[in-house]
Amino acid sequence: RTNTRLDPAVSHSFVYRGTFVHSTQQKALQILKDALLGVDTQGKIAFIEEGKELEKLSQTFGFKTSDITQLAQHEFFMPGLVDTHIHASQYSYAGTALDMPLLQWLNAYTFPVESRFKDLEFARKVYTQIVRRTLRNGTTTACYFATIHTEASLLLGQIANNFGQRALVGKVCMDRNDCVKHYKETLQDSQDETCRWVLYPLVKPVVTPRFAPSCTGALLEQLGEIAKNNNLHIQSHISETLEEVKLVKELFPESESYADVYYKHNLLTDKTVMAHGCHLSDEELALFRETGASLSHCPNSNFSLCSGVLNVRNVLKHKVKLGLGTDVAGGYSASMLDAVRRALDASKVLTIQDPKYKTLSFEEVFRIATLGGSQALSLDDQTGNFEVGKDFDALRINVAAEGGPIDLIQDEEPKVGDDRNIAEVFVAGRKVVPITE
Amino acid sequence: RTNTRLDPAVSHSFVYRGTFVHSTQQKALQILKDALLGVDTQGKIAFIEEGKELEKLSQTFGFKTSDITQLAQHEFFMPGLVDTHIHASQYSYAGTALDMPLLQWLNAYTFPVESRFKDLEFARKVYTQIVRRTLRNGTTTACYFATIHTEASLLLGQIANNFGQRALVGKVCMDRNDCVKHYKETLQDSQDETCRWVLYPLVKPVVTPRFAPSCTGALLEQLGEIAKNNNLHIQSHISETLEEVKLVKELFPESESYADVYYKHNLLTDKTVMAHGCHLSDEELALFRETGASLSHCPNSNFSLCSGVLNVRNVLKHKVKLGLGTDVAGGYSASMLDAVRRALDASKVLTIQDPKYKTLSFEEVFRIATLGGSQALSLDDQTGNFEVGKDFDALRINVAAEGGPIDLIQDEEPKVGDDRNIAEVFVAGRKVVPITE
Ligand SMILES: [Zn+2]
Ligand SMILES: [Zn+2]
Repeated sequence: RTNTRLDPAVSHSFVYRGTFVHSTQQKALQILKDALLGVDTQGKIAFIEEGKELEKLSQTFGFKTSDITQLAQHEFFMPGLVDTHIHASQYSYAGTALDMPLLQWLNAYTFPVESRFKDLEFARKVYTQIVRRTLRNGTTTACYFATIHTEASLLLGQIANNFGQRALVGKVCMDRNDCVKHYKETLQDSQDETCRWVLYPLVKPVVTPRFAPSCTGALLEQLGEIAKNNNLHIQSHISETLEEVKLVKELFPESESYADVYYKHNLLTDKTVMAHGCHLSDEELALFRETGASLSHCPNSNFSLCSGVLNVRNVLKHKVKLGLGTDVAGGYSASMLDAVRRALDASKVLTIQDPKYKTLSFEEVFRIATLGGSQALSLDDQTGNFEVGKDFDALRINVAAEGGPIDLIQDEEPKVGDDRNIAEVFVAGRKVVPITE
Repeated sequence: RTNTRLDPAVSHSFVYRGTFVHSTQQKALQILKDALLGVDTQGKIAFIEEGKELEKLSQTFGFKTSDITQLAQHEFFMPGLVDTHIHASQYSYAGTALDMPLLQWLNAYTFPVESRFKDLEFARKVYTQIVRRTLRNGTTTACYFATIHTEASLLLGQIANNFGQRALVGKVCMDRNDCVKHYKETLQDSQDETCRWVLYPLVKPVVTPRFAPSCTGALLEQLGEIAKNNNLHIQSHISETLEEVKLVKELFPESESYADVYYKHNLLTDKTVMAHGCHLSDEELALFRETGASLSHCPNSNFSLCSGVLNVRNVLKHKVKLGLGTDVAGGYSASMLDAVRRALDASKVLTIQDPKYKTLSFEEVFRIATLGGSQALSLDDQTGNFEVGKDFDALRINVAAEGGPIDLIQDEEPKVGDDRNIAEVFVAGRKVVPITE
């Protein structure tokens, strides 16, 4: 328990009273009614306790009853959503072009579009749109793939910083591309450029080999070195489709498995997040567990590109850290609320296939989308739920939002339909939605 | 080609110029750019032709250039969406309670809630909400299940009429219910009440046995008679889950199949729509084809209740008429745009299971949601696409709607994100959205 005194003179400390909904390690969904939550001037959660502790709290932290903001009857706070895998550059064609499998899709759509990001004005337009859009949809933390262009990737970091979004930003590294020949880089470039990173308080770089088939072993090796020497996050893709698994086996015949390719090159660490993993073996999951690497489950993308269905229950059984991702534009929606719904669908598909399969509950998926995501990105010391000492990354939900998607009929459980129900978004205590120009 | 003259003195005739998107029997998606569409005083489509025919059309139909409303660059018209299966009464718990399979779910949630609709004020509140909500989401035609209460069911018809929605409304008939014992009726009541129908121009009654397990053979028999004698529409459920198929086999041992139960009781006609059909055999599909009965595909519900995945390609191969349904509240969304997305997901799941399965295209699903639905409800002489002589049931879409879910990046194909993109809704030429109180 921290003892930071809230200084009422500092405008950024504040106290809310009302319903708070979040996840803990013990409880997938905890609903705290009539709770008091205080945020200190650093944007960190100073306390979260029952309303009846008001007197004690106001004395300890030095605030008056009139300083408290009371949530309305149909309002509640939930933790910000953590998107563990999203291609910022692909937002320019989200919602279209989902008519072919992964490897063809990359060549037909992704590589040609991504190559446009050498144009910084185009990059600024698209990156501004995606950061605004995801914030409005409650994504307080995003783990972004940019493109191979360093300048544009740095711009994405700057834009996330300016709008106040917590972000990991990865300049994509790839030195193998037979189809769109100009959209790759030399090994030396990949190395040099990955190191050119300005850091912002909430924005960090992430070492980003696109995926094994786009990289030579030499590049993977050196990216592993860079990550290690600079203690950096790592992200990539793994085992999204069976065709890709087969290709990796051909390209890296000396490796025992797809996971082993990354493992051998020091790219599986406790700061690694790998997207998809639909077709990982139990041995590969054990390797994830052992190294502390995590998976990003992207169900919309897995459906849209017909890639496969991740067996989340099995991932959890192996105690592999797991977050959710939108995987824009393999996934057509930039909204993590969509990712939550699609994760439930994916789990139900597994139950349809085998009625004995234990479907994920809504509560479990809620946890994966918030606390799970923060763990998958090794940011759970800073965000993911309402624990004292963590940053206040939160969504103020208004179930009864005017013009919103929900009709109130009876007394409702806390729920959220779409971004219209997200009245305010906070990152590290700073109100970032509504967006002020 | 009709030769109705548009009378400019009558305020309800009008002409639009711009992009129109719809389906025909030959083409799943036809995009007509710079087209002229005229609506006569009866709300019917008087003409739809290329913009260059302006002079000829204005002479034939007697309108001036200044009478034309020009669509903006990011606007287009599409046909109204046809929801072929929706439980109006279940809207009161949409989005909750999806944690058990069908037969248990009916007993735990559905029957207790439906029994509240004997209270007309409760019914008025819920039915007003669902009609407004579906209209706002572009459902110009809805095929509703109400409850067993005649007064409340009539009220639903009246509310749909008042808001201007085209609707089929079914008072549910069931004389077998072992679990919620008061929520059933006598055979005689079922008969008498089904005939007590006030008719509105756009609202029709539909004979509605809940599903075979809720009905005795005697009730099914008499409902078949009523439908035949009054040339009425028929709706029910069929083959949603394997457990239910097994139950029907036990309850109706004399029938060869689930479809045969309805067939034997004269409930499969060319005015019949049956929800789900996930587990129908090819023989049963052939029986549908033969009788002209149709299916309502409800993918959100099929996922949510883990019921199964309809093989739509096989249904189409058997030339069975097919529409889409939301199946609120087995499906948690009242939006047909959601049904379109879930239908694509369901098809992609079949491709994931068998890569040779030919995934439905977006265009095909668009047709099923509009023209297909009108055919499934035997209303395709009146609605479903922009053919001359049909009623003008249409959505005016604004891709660039202020505050909407779509960011415009490049010149976009016509697309629609959610209800925020639906600027106006017309039913039979009458503007019903925005809703005026
Ligand atoms: Zn990806
Ligand atoms: Zn139903």
